[in-house]
Amino acid sequence: MKNSDEEIGSEKETIRVEAFSDGVFAIAITLLILEIHVPEFEEGESLFSALAHEWASIVAFFIGFFTILICWINHHFMFRYIYKSDSMLLLINGLKLLVVTATPFATALLAKSIETDWQQQSVNIYCFNFALMGIAMSGIWSYANSKGFTKASSREYLRSTTWLYYFAGLFSTVIFAISFWNVFVCLGLSAVMFVIFLFPKRAVTWRLGRIKSKLVLD
Amino acid sequence: MKNSDEEIGSEKETIRVEAFSDGVFAIAITLLILEIHVPEFEEGESLFSALAHEWASIVAFFIGFFTILICWINHHFMFRYIYKSDSMLLLINGLKLLVVTATPFATALLAKSIETDWQQQSVNIYCFNFALMGIAMSGIWSYANSKGFTKASSREYLRSTTWLYYFAGLFSTVIFAISFWNVFVCLGLSAVMFVIFLFPKRAVTWRLGRIKSKLVLD
Amino acid sequence: MKNSDEEIGSEKETIRVEAFSDGVFAIAITLLILEIHVPEFEEGESLFSALAHEWASIVAFFIGFFTILICWINHHFMFRYIYKSDSMLLLINGLKLLVVTATPFATALLAKSIETDWQQQSVNIYCFNFALMGIAMSGIWSYANSKGFTKASSREYLRSTTWLYYFAGLFSTVIFAISFWNVFVCLGLSAVMFVIFLFPKRAVTWRLGRIKSKLVLD
Amino acid sequence: MKNSDEEIGSEKETIRVEAFSDGVFAIAITLLILEIHVPEFEEGESLFSALAHEWASIVAFFIGFFTILICWINHHFMFRYIYKSDSMLLLINGLKLLVVTATPFATALLAKSIETDWQQQSVNIYCFNFALMGIAMSGIWSYANSKGFTKASSREYLRSTTWLYYFAGLFSTVIFAISFWNVFVCLGLSAVMFVIFLFPKRAVTWRLGRIKSKLVLD
Repeated sequence: MKNSDEEIGSEKETIRVEAFSDGVFAIAITLLILEIHVPEFEEGESLFSALAHEWASIVAFFIGFFTILICWINHHFMFRYIYKSDSMLLLINGLKLLVVTATPFATALLAKSIETDWQQQSVNIYCFNFALMGIAMSGIWSYANSKGFTKASSREYLRSTTWLYYFAGLFSTVIFAISFWNVFVCLGLSAVMFVIFLFPKRAVTWRLGRIKSKLVLD
Repeated sequence: MKNSDEEIGSEKETIRVEAFSDGVFAIAITLLILEIHVPEFEEGESLFSALAHEWASIVAFFIGFFTILICWINHHFMFRYIYKSDSMLLLINGLKLLVVTATPFATALLAKSIETDWQQQSVNIYCFNFALMGIAMSGIWSYANSKGFTKASSREYLRSTTWLYYFAGLFSTVIFAISFWNVFVCLGLSAVMFVIFLFPKRAVTWRLGRIKSKLVLD
Repeated sequence: MKNSDEEIGSEKETIRVEAFSDGVFAIAITLLILEIHVPEFEEGESLFSALAHEWASIVAFFIGFFTILICWINHHFMFRYIYKSDSMLLLINGLKLLVVTATPFATALLAKSIETDWQQQSVNIYCFNFALMGIAMSGIWSYANSKGFTKASSREYLRSTTWLYYFAGLFSTVIFAISFWNVFVCLGLSAVMFVIFLFPKRAVTWRLGRIKSKLVLD
Repeated sequence: MKNSDEEIGSEKETIRVEAFSDGVFAIAITLLILEIHVPEFEEGESLFSALAHEWASIVAFFIGFFTILICWINHHFMFRYIYKSDSMLLLINGLKLLVVTATPFATALLAKSIETDWQQQSVNIYCFNFALMGIAMSGIWSYANSKGFTKASSREYLRSTTWLYYFAGLFSTVIFAISFWNVFVCLGLSAVMFVIFLFPKRAVTWRLGRIKSKLVLD
């Protein structure tokens, strides 16, 4: 009985999780612009120089935008292989969305504090948010995978994906730890992470190549 | 004639109700973050202690987030079994969405009033919103079910679901009543309700087990 | 050639128009709540009485909510029978969405002006917005229908729907005209229009019945 | 292996890119209204004249609305023929969405600066945003087309579409350049561009006609 109830509506299942998540991602990413204030006109100052004073808000807007975009790209990537869901997965995904909705706040904090004594602490908070994102990502995938909700052409492909998202959780946590030591090293490593996770498929394929060459060697 | 017109486009029907509802849920849940204000820099105070002053907003953000998330989880759960709709269902669903859009207001009120003499009254209003949510939930399901718009593997399964959502309406109303008497008992019971409705399928399956064991006994 | 290009992707066609429109409806309806301000705590005043001062905002929230909800219900109703689109339909639908996004502004204006000398004028503007909605609605349907983008079980059904939306455009324009003469008659007629358009299918079916009984008589 | 993994979930692929993009477009277009402020009541002034002072905001709202609407219409048009995606396409599409989310800011800047000495510079920034939109548009299409992700009834049709979007990138860049020389010529040309890109299919069909008549002549 339980199984047949799961089958009813099973095709709709991940569609709606994705639609709801897409909505949250789309809104969070669009709200970021509200943090850049339109400068008040001042006699004798050019608009470009007035906007230059807003540089911290503008940089924070870009950081926030790419944080959420990359998060969406990876969510999208995962859900190509996740074809089923249950209440627990919805909850883990919900925690992930909680972190996504908190991102505009974390980046606004960054923008406002970067030129003050709060610099270090605001980077800590931003990186904490970032680490939670990585961990939630790894949580969604490893839960779905362990429950057999995932499907790909081979077990190795799934295993490489699992490897990628464990790496995401671990790497973002390390970046958070480093943020207490050196802000610039931490932002540099975040940029490295951005580049890797812009192309999750390549990372998985690269890992897959390594697994296979190992198999041949053994 | 009426029937054949209903058939045209019938597959699209609940898809759009769900898409519109998902949009409203997604926006309401993301707007919550706008209520947490970025603190102004003050010499000699740490950012963490400045954020600690915002504790009420932060707690309210979490309460609001889980209120809407759980609401979405149950909406999603219901609509796995609802395959048809009519104007009346759209209206009831609209009332439900009205309550959802009011949630950011109710939680902002909670955050701003919790340390003042308005504490009790703001909890009353929050719980009123909460009760309306439970009642609307039960309204959607019982209307759809009574009209034969629902489909599951067995009548017992549908009946258990009906039972769950009558319980939702009743329990949230009781919590509202208790909010006039004791705020802490009321918030505790809300937490219990959160845990139950995070996993609607389990609650329905548990109820189903009880119905069956009764049938065997009779 | 032109035809075969239209066929490619034709199934996706109205889906995306509907998805984009649903997004705009969902956001506009959720933004309404931002116009109700959380009152500042004042010693010796109860929260309920403080909220009572906000009555105009609260009433405006309800008016705005139902305006947009009913608009969505009718958009949804129409697009059950519209299965194709072209650039002109996207443009007309875009004008409709323009009016929808303007609704939070029109209702905010209403809320702020209702207790001032601007009462009459703010009702004029709200009703102007309302009339544009009705006209856009009738525009979408009559354009889609004239182009043969609509499908239903019978020609009479389509004709009754056309009749309903011409009525929508006409009635809302009349309400706008009356708003210059008497605000209360105008709001009363708006309420009547709300009730009719909450149930577009019933209105169409009622009209259909009249057409048929006429056919029998002839 | 790589191919079969691409096939799994391939039908879902562009659906989600479109859904996420639709969300961003819908939110950005709806946020525009927040820039028109509800005027404060003043004794002796009519509401209409108070709103007349807001003319710059209102004009900017219309400009912003049509900018985003036309952008969506063309995104929609393109994705009728794009049936596949990869990480790079998601990134280019992301850059496009970045420009879309920045549009409410660019138009707010325009509204606030149009009556000051910042007029020219705010038009420069708006046109810069506009040029980036055209370039991103042309980037999405030419990347997808070069990768073979597009499908239409004939190669000529695809080639005409490529031509249209190269034209979009070029024309919007020219408009940007002209904005440094003469604001009014630049706004006039933007209006011409609006009219062309409201009807992308007609433009493509017109181009297709020219290609064919050439083939016959040769």
